[in-house]
This record gives sequence, C-alpha cells and structure tokens, in this order.
Amino acid sequence: MRVIYNMASLSHKLQTILRNALSNKTSFAHTTFFRAFTWSASRLQLQTTQGTNANVLIGDVDRFGGVTVNLVESDFTSDISEGVFCNLLRDSLTRWRTEGRTAVWLQVPISLSRFVAAASVQGFTYHHANKDRAILALWLPDGQSRLPGFATHQVGVAGAVVDESNGKVLVVQDKNKTVNAWKFPGGLSDPGENIGTTAVREVFEETGVRSEFKSLLSIRQQHNHPGAFGMSDMYIVCRLSPLTYDINFCTQECLRCEWLELTELAETGDTTPITSRLAKLLLHGLNQGFDKIDLPMEELPAVYSGRFYQLYHRKLPQAHEQRPEDEVHRP
Amino acid sequence: MRVIYNMASLSHKLQTILRNALSNKTSFAHTTFFRAFTWSASRLQLQTTQGTNANVLIGDVDRFGGVTVNLVESDFTSDISEGVFCNLLRDSLTRWRTEGRTAVWLQVPISLSRFVAAASVQGFTYHHANKDRAILALWLPDGQSRLPGFATHQVGVAGAVVDESNGKVLVVQDKNKTVNAWKFPGGLSDPGENIGTTAVREVFEETGVRSEFKSLLSIRQQHNHPGAFGMSDMYIVCRLSPLTYDINFCTQECLRCEWLELTELAETGDTTPITSRLAKLLLHGLNQGFDKIDLPMEELPAVYSGRFYQLYHRKLPQAHEQRPEDEVHRP
Repeated sequence: MRVIYNMASLSHKLQTILRNALSNKTSFAHTTFFRAFTWSASRLQLQTTQGTNANVLIGDVDRFGGVTVNLVESDFTSDISEGVFCNLLRDSLTRWRTEGRTAVWLQVPISLSRFVAAASVQGFTYHHANKDRAILALWLPDGQSRLPGFATHQVGVAGAVVDESNGKVLVVQDKNKTVNAWKFPGGLSDPGENIGTTAVREVFEETGVRSEFKSLLSIRQQHNHPGAFGMSDMYIVCRLSPLTYDINFCTQECLRCEWLELTELAETGDTTPITSRLAKLLLHGLNQGFDKIDLPMEELPAVYSGRFYQLYHRKLPQAHEQRPEDEVHRP
Repeated sequence: MRVIYNMASLSHKLQTILRNALSNKTSFAHTTFFRAFTWSASRLQLQTTQGTNANVLIGDVDRFGGVTVNLVESDFTSDISEGVFCNLLRDSLTRWRTEGRTAVWLQVPISLSRFVAAASVQGFTYHHANKDRAILALWLPDGQSRLPGFATHQVGVAGAVVDESNGKVLVVQDKNKTVNAWKFPGGLSDPGENIGTTAVREVFEETGVRSEFKSLLSIRQQHNHPGAFGMSDMYIVCRLSPLTYDINFCTQECLRCEWLELTELAETGDTTPITSRLAKLLLHGLNQGFDKIDLPMEELPAVYSGRFYQLYHRKLPQAHEQRPEDEVHRP
C-alpha cells in the first residue's frame, strides 16, 4: 500500500502501531493508542487520494468478523467535510466487503454528528445512542441483518409491604390520574439497579416507609408501551417487610397513601386488575405461609466475569428438608 | 408578535393552525398538520430575524410541561446551516424557559443529523436513537434531570424442554466457547415478543425440536453486560413440554445437542451454575409435581389500553381447591 511510504515522518511507536494495524495483527485494547491511530492513519491515507489505492478507515475487528471504527474529535475530523467522509466510508466499505467482513460499527461523538448523515447515505442506521455518543451499524452480507439489537425493555418494580401483625398492606393512589385506583408504590429501575433495591427505594421515596426485600412475586410484560417510548415494559412486584410504619408520602406523586387491609384490597373495585390479583395472592400467602407464593433471591457467581448475579426461583428444599419421595428417580 | 403580520400570505387553514398553536390551544395530534406547521412556522419566523422578537421553534406541549419539536426534511431544514439552527434553538430555549417549560425533546431524522451537534452546543444529549431517527433531550429547570430514561434491559429466554416419560431434558453446547458446558437452548427476545414465544422459537431454531410453553421457572438479572452493549440483561428460564423429539440442531450455533437425564445434568460439572441449579429445580418438580416449581402464565386486561398482557406468578388455588384454613382471615 502506498500509505506505507508516508510513514517516515511518524514516530517509531506510531509506525509500529500502524503497520500492525494495517496487517490486522493488533487488537487495539488501549483506547489512547487506538485514538492516536485512527487519527493518524486516516490523515495519512487521505494523502494518497490521487494514488491507485483508495483511502480507507481502519477499525478493530471482533471475533464475529465485524469492524468497529471509533471516530474521535481531532484536527483531522474537524477538517473534513460530510462529502469527503462519505467517499472515505464508501471506499472503506468496498475494502471491508472484499475482506469478507460481516458488519461495520461506527462510534460517533455527538460533536461529529454531521458524519451520521453521511454514513446513512451508505446504508448505516442508528443502532443506539446515549448521552454524547451514537452507535451506527451496517450489516454487510446479503440477507437479513443478524446483528443483535439494543435493549428492548424498561423494568418497573413495585413493592407490596405487608405488615404480618395486622394483615395490612401499604398502598397509594397516583396523583394526576383520571381513575383513583389503589396500587403498590413503585417505579422504574435506575440503570444497573437490582430489582429489590428499586422496590425498597421507590417505596421509601413515595411513602416515607422503610422496608426490606423478601421475595419476588410476579412478572408482567407489556409491549409497545407509551410510557417506555414504544418499547417493552417489564413490571415486577416484590414482597417487602416493613421496618418503619409512619407514612410521610410524596405529595408530588401521590394523592393518598394508607395501610389497607389485604382483605379489603382483594375485594375492592377501586384498584387495578393486577393489584387485585396480587392482593389475593398475598392473602393466600399470609394465611398459608409466604413460602407458597415467594420466589426468594439468591446470589450465584457468573461463569465469565466472576461477579455475582441475583437469581430468583421457587425455593428448593434443602437435603434435610426433603421428604422421602424426593429421592425417587424416574426410570 | 411580529410573526402574526406575515400571515396574510398563508392559507386560511394554516393561519388558524398557527394562531392556535402560538396561543397553545391546539394539540397537534395529526402528524401531517404538525409537520406542515413546523415547517411553515419556522420559515415564517425566520423572516423576523431583524425584528425585536427572536425567532423560535414551536413544538407540542405534553402534560408534564415538556415541549417536543419534530424536525422534518423540508425546503426550510435543508436550507439552514448548523449555525443558524444553533441560534434558533438558543432563542427558542430562552422563550421556553420564560414559559416555565420543564424539558425539550428534539426528534431528528438521520438525514438532518448535522443539527444534533448544534443542539449539543445548547446542552442537549442523546436520549435514544433507532434506525433513522435520534431523540435528543434537555432538562430545563435547575437540579438533576427527572426525565425518564430509555430501555435498560435486553431479555434472553431459555427453554428447558422436559420429557416427563423418561426424565430427560434437551441441552446444547455452544459452538466457539472456550468451555463446553451443557446449557438450555435459548436466545434474545425479538422486540415485542412474549417470553414463552421466544423460548419455543429459540429451542426450535437451535435444536429442531418443537415444544409448547408450560411455565416460567426463574429470573436472573446481570448489569454492565458486555453482550448487551454495557446495559443490563434479564435471563429467564421457562419450562417447555416437547411436541417432537428428533434432534436436528443448528451447526452454526451448537457443537452438540442431546436429550440428557435430568439426574445427570443436576450432578455433572460440565455445566454452568445456573443450569445446574435449574436442573435440580426441575428434578424436584419431576418428582414432586411441577406445580411445586412453576409460575404459570395468565392474560389480564390492561387498564388504559384495554389490550391483554401476560402475568406470571404462583398459581392461586381456585375457590373449590382451597383448604378450610384459606378462609381464615387474620385479625
């Protein structure tokens, strides 16, 4: 490649990085190196515009055969126009197709968003975007894209705080709703927040009552949810145990907040179908033992990261709790 | 406002729309009207550049006091530069702040992405983006943003297909993994797909075995997941019942696929901690009855949309199944 001839003016370190990159031997794990490389390589290659070799962007190749190009703010990127970038990307795509690549990912900082329109001319679409960065993707082979999609669900968690001493449960009525229905306090999980933590936090924020997580009770899935920007909503109800009892509810969010008899909540028409159902389930648990309705949580180690994750399922009897017939194995 | 004086040249219909919009009396439910309005109003107001009143973008006001501006491709938007848009947006923000608005949402088609960088200069960041559209947001009042975030989770579903006649379960080993561990076939939910549907589809795609959904067994949550672009992952295991038994596995995804004794899967070291745990749970169900481990699914009507959603929780005994102590109510 002609680009190699222009390397003389670069530092030895950068020359090595570039040579390795051009022969795809190096994985650019170190961001600073990769940024320096992206900038220098692109500038260098622009110098060969009149040559026989087309200029190409260079990215990191992943184990699925996809290429990731990380655009960064630099003298180079601030200098070139949408048109120049569009040509550079077109020539790069020709090369990536020749090399049999499966996909191209473009990481574009918000300040360089003019390149997004240029990329869309070459068939790229938004995969996702957050804060100050957009990720665009293009599937290269024929046929439907096999690229994984981005997050599809928001997770909302409600906490049913049951006072076992008197059979009452903590309920609220939302402010600004057309129908004043009793429901369990709750809200959306913050990014990275565990289910039980959301339940305890939301109950405290809405009602002023402190509580602790006991178990997961139910899961509901809804699609095309208006409150989720058209995405899906997973609504999880947890059973909590109260640590304090005095109500000091948030007047911005709630119209009313009360400790209500579970029997009353299970029978009243002033509630939603799901709250009514959960009230009946909780009443069954209160009378027969919460082990009849609970999915307790346990932490298990993740295979690859070694970090712990939270798993919820029906309690498995311990060896000493097992009845004889547990030992029976089917043929 | 000076802008009113320029209305004479517009059709009577558009004049009415504009006047109502400027006094915030109309909700622009009809997209075509709103698009026409955005375009015409912006063009019109640009004519007053030299006047005392600043030009402003006009959007739809929601019940939370947020303003949504839907930028569309038009003669107007293709004419103006990033700089002009930046000034227009700055003046609009001044006005929205005066009006006490809480937030501004900008919907930007990918072809107009140069306006995204201009908006970022005014403090906007990406809220989300998908396919050919980016949504930017700016929280206007002092203090931390109270805008709801975008979807945080991907949902993966695995299917444990249990053959009750011989106590075997369908398992696979992934191709291209460093560790060859037995696991249940599964994969990511497509957008809008129900949990049970994902399980049945993925089992068929990976193994060639047809099955039907029986119940939900477990939920696991992981955060900062590399396979979820750093977002969270919800992994759900379902119990399925086989409809066919012949294996014809996908050689692109799987290295092996077998009907394995549940007792063997529960004891082997060649599996993941979660699969081993679920094997023990399934064995308990096989011996004691699956009602001991199942969360069956039921469809309930949504309060506002009237559509049906799927709810999973422990089975509630029917009235005729209840034992006398179920009738006992606590004091």
